Amino acid sequence: MKPAVFADTPEPPYYAVIFSSLKTEIDPAYADAAMRMVQLAAQQPGYLGVEHAAGADGFGITVSYWASLEAIAAWRAHAEHAVVQQQGRAHWYDHYELRVARVERGASFERNR
Amino acid sequence: MKPAVFADTPEPPYYAVIFSSLKTEIDPAYADAAMRMVQLAAQQPGYLGVEHAAGADGFGITVSYWASLEAIAAWRAHAEHAVVQQQGRAHWYDHYELRVARVERGASFERNR
Repeated sequence: MKPAVFADTPEPPYYAVIFSSLKTEIDPAYADAAMRMVQLAAQQPGYLGVEHAAGADGFGITVSYWASLEAIAAWRAHAEHAVVQQQGRAHWYDHYELRVARVERGASFERNR
Repeated sequence: MKPAVFADTPEPPYYAVIFSSLKTEIDPAYADAAMRMVQLAAQQPGYLGVEHAAGADGFGITVSYWASLEAIAAWRAHAEHAVVQQQGRAHWYDHYELRVARVERGASFERNR
């Protein structure tokens, strides 16, 4: 079975939002907001999954997967998410890059145990 | 100026290879091979940049950016890279997901200093 850190995405095509960010200093409110956003995103129509990795240097990559561009646009415009996006720009992020991409091909590897 | 952890990608469209992986135990040979692959990828035609984040749990995300699907196919087939891919499956990875995606839209945020 696929470990839970991986998103269980369907056959392509579908969409990915690649969010790369460099955080400012540690803010305990960030972790709470990030966890809430992960939970809230999972309830949105068209949500397919999320993967996240971040190192101790404050640089992190979050990739969320969506069924359509419409689903991404709706999540972006979600009222509570919009407030947190604004907090991110005001307090948490030094720099971020957000890229919307259409996944066209996928491959997996699973070690035999 | 954009911090060096971010890839300096052009205006879309271009391509992203999203590589999410869960490593087995720590292997010093992995870090050497990963660094060599980053250097080698940067010399390939059509290479646009790379972003990487990994946590202490062994889960990491590397996104490399490319000008075309042909550039991705050539890098995948590169002889030295192919050897390292095989080492990864033999030794380093418990599970990975590789997704090839076409970047259609990008947005940036840079804090005013």
